Amino acid sequence: MLDNVLQTIDDGSEQSLDGLKEFLRIPSVSTDDHYAADIRKCADWLSGTIRKIGLDAQVLPTAGHPVVVARNEHKPGRPTVLFYGHYDVQPPDPFDQWTTPPFEPAVRDGAIYARGAADDKGQVWAHLQAIRAWQRHGGLPVNLTMLIEGEEEIGSGSLPSFIESHRQMLHADLAIASDTNQYARGLPAISYGLRGIVFLEITLTGPSHDLHSGIYGGSVPNVANVLTELLATLHDKQGRVAVEGFYDDVLPLTDAERQMWRKLPFDENRFAAELGMSSSQLGGETGYSTLERQWARPTCDINGMTSGYQGPGAKTIIPATASAKLSMRLVPSQDPATIARMVEQALRRRCPETVKMEVSGVTWSPPILIPHDGAPIRAATDAYKVGFNATPTLIRCGGTLHVVPQIKSLLGIDTLLVGFGLPDDRVHSPNEKFDLDALHCGTRTAAALYQNLAGIDSFK
Amino acid sequence: MLDNVLQTIDDGSEQSLDGLKEFLRIPSVSTDDHYAADIRKCADWLSGTIRKIGLDAQVLPTAGHPVVVARNEHKPGRPTVLFYGHYDVQPPDPFDQWTTPPFEPAVRDGAIYARGAADDKGQVWAHLQAIRAWQRHGGLPVNLTMLIEGEEEIGSGSLPSFIESHRQMLHADLAIASDTNQYARGLPAISYGLRGIVFLEITLTGPSHDLHSGIYGGSVPNVANVLTELLATLHDKQGRVAVEGFYDDVLPLTDAERQMWRKLPFDENRFAAELGMSSSQLGGETGYSTLERQWARPTCDINGMTSGYQGPGAKTIIPATASAKLSMRLVPSQDPATIARMVEQALRRRCPETVKMEVSGVTWSPPILIPHDGAPIRAATDAYKVGFNATPTLIRCGGTLHVVPQIKSLLGIDTLLVGFGLPDDRVHSPNEKFDLDALHCGTRTAAALYQNLAGIDSFK
Repeated sequence: MLDNVLQTIDDGSEQSLDGLKEFLRIPSVSTDDHYAADIRKCADWLSGTIRKIGLDAQVLPTAGHPVVVARNEHKPGRPTVLFYGHYDVQPPDPFDQWTTPPFEPAVRDGAIYARGAADDKGQVWAHLQAIRAWQRHGGLPVNLTMLIEGEEEIGSGSLPSFIESHRQMLHADLAIASDTNQYARGLPAISYGLRGIVFLEITLTGPSHDLHSGIYGGSVPNVANVLTELLATLHDKQGRVAVEGFYDDVLPLTDAERQMWRKLPFDENRFAAELGMSSSQLGGETGYSTLERQWARPTCDINGMTSGYQGPGAKTIIPATASAKLSMRLVPSQDPATIARMVEQALRRRCPETVKMEVSGVTWSPPILIPHDGAPIRAATDAYKVGFNATPTLIRCGGTLHVVPQIKSLLGIDTLLVGFGLPDDRVHSPNEKFDLDALHCGTRTAAALYQNLAGIDSFK
Repeated sequence: MLDNVLQTIDDGSEQSLDGLKEFLRIPSVSTDDHYAADIRKCADWLSGTIRKIGLDAQVLPTAGHPVVVARNEHKPGRPTVLFYGHYDVQPPDPFDQWTTPPFEPAVRDGAIYARGAADDKGQVWAHLQAIRAWQRHGGLPVNLTMLIEGEEEIGSGSLPSFIESHRQMLHADLAIASDTNQYARGLPAISYGLRGIVFLEITLTGPSHDLHSGIYGGSVPNVANVLTELLATLHDKQGRVAVEGFYDDVLPLTDAERQMWRKLPFDENRFAAELGMSSSQLGGETGYSTLERQWARPTCDINGMTSGYQGPGAKTIIPATASAKLSMRLVPSQDPATIARMVEQALRRRCPETVKMEVSGVTWSPPILIPHDGAPIRAATDAYKVGFNATPTLIRCGGTLHVVPQIKSLLGIDTLLVGFGLPDDRVHSPNEKFDLDALHCGTRTAAALYQNLAGIDSFK
């Protein structure tokens, strides 16, 4: 049966592109209220399109943007799969850097260019095409529930309470999502780990107003100086985060993982050059490679810092306040709440009594690791072989997908990350694109994946 | 003769205020081109007013705002005094915090409120009134040249080349300026020292653009983190500036100075409270009092710092650049060029090779110390006794007056700093004021000072 499904997919690629273009023409930017009507329009269009494929689909409200929930006929005795995706996109700015307008999808050089092409509309579209092909041949071999949200790009804030109040409806054996990348062109990948995050903002206050640095300098605390001294304590000379207990729960990389990643093609010079640097400028925790640092080691980065006068020229003041935004990327099995508390306590302990310290805006998301030798990973591996004619590599991802730990904690299931994008898709940047080849192979992969998941006896 | 002059001053106080109000009504804000016509108008008004008093006065062009130069008839055999003042004022913002509008002078509670009331129009006015009184009684007893500039509030940028090209005209035995404060109400002061300044800006560059802190975090240098680590090295645990050689040329405070200042009334609690702090929050170099730290010890303050995302909420990036504005206040006999070089070299030596460092915008002004036991100081001391009926205290000033070292290096003479303002005059802030009593006693002091300077045989 899968052969017939794949044949249908291979035959229908032109029609597939027309539908995706319609999807991409809707400027469903979630962060800007200006686009609120387009968000709604996109959800309606999407549920209508899914209904045409033959699934039940509805637009359901949340505290924020609506979600699209769809399902085929669930039959007893076969696995239930929860597909997660998102229909919202990043803002298109800066507009003037786009070769063709962000919401007028254009095909050139074997790729489709538009905001959302890879993140995540194109990847959602691959699944919808795979499902449509299955529907032509008697229907999907699994029970499928689709959850496609409109707030991924703004932190999936409404999703936890939606999942919580729709647990029954969303109950499944496994979740799958296609919102990640291949490792490189022709080298598909399954991400079996995600870093978590703790974000916080620290604000130091000294005098009630900016002071003349001549009249007062030397006799009052300078909060900007204090901030640098405080934040400088957060790393040691080996590039490790110097907070007591920070590494206590870090799972060491296994030899097998390190070996696996060492075999991946990775050109330090090219990586550095793409960032406008030389490879000697790369750096991080001693004893780890670049990929290990990105995928499996925790960090503590200043994301922003502000104090005093920042205009042109000199204004010689002692600033009244200084603040910094900090984020820690976490790895399994670090607990975000524990790390947030440790970091805040370390900062408080190290902050001199001459200044007042406030910590605010604390948010977090836990790291995720799914067993990379289980039946779901094997099912995905075999699916990629069918879809891409290549064995996928097993990688982790340095970033954070809030929804994966949400699904884990609220529904008790893992999420299989089967991504079809490419690292050069310019996600979140001007001229975002999705390769037509990735769309086609991704659609084939999705089709095979549903077949392979149907064959799994137990997801425990 | 001085008695008659003082009598004239005491009689004419009402008329004195009308003229000052005219002066204050002209919004001669130097930093904003919007006020260019007012700057010119103010210079014209001032030279006209001085001519009415009976001196020669003219408005002379510079590369920037014009200066007013005036002189009485110079006669052989008597000292020549160069009076320095400025007719430009700080911007009045924030407008809405003024009780009465900044350029509509209003008298209440024994003070005149307006932008420039104390800094420096009111103090210039005191001298003009003293000179006028002398003119009524046969003229000043000294040769006087007045140099009143329009760029003090923006760094006196055009003044050095103006002085250099008018050396002959400005030749004098001593300069005097009234642009400083009494120590406290009823406790007039002569400032015999000023701190200098070195200002510079440091910019660190890492990757060519902001990076996703999830994807890249841990494998590339974070310039904001590096900046904190670099700037944190600038102080040691004793609050001293930790740059090799920084203190080599610092003149130690003499026991006499420390004793003199220890006798000054100074309430740490009140000082801290005025800054919205408690006295336990005050701090600085170990082993020195607040006044000593402000007047006689060098500093290194961050005046501003900027990096990455500074808007509301989180944007988890690794910033591409991070920069800070730094100023060092210098004390005698530190050399600004040497200090600038030392600090830059220290920063370069300490900056890791993973980031690029640029130092820009380096400007400086040297510290100044004038002998506090010479004839000019004695002349001023006696003048204050006449003017304020109080013995002035000898203090230094933590701030920098660019013109004083300029006059020293270009004309080879010291500047006597005889200020009449009060620490609570809110200079540079809304509701700037000048006490009518300070105006009156200051005018009397100026009158006596010219008499006393006439009696000095040698200024060498």
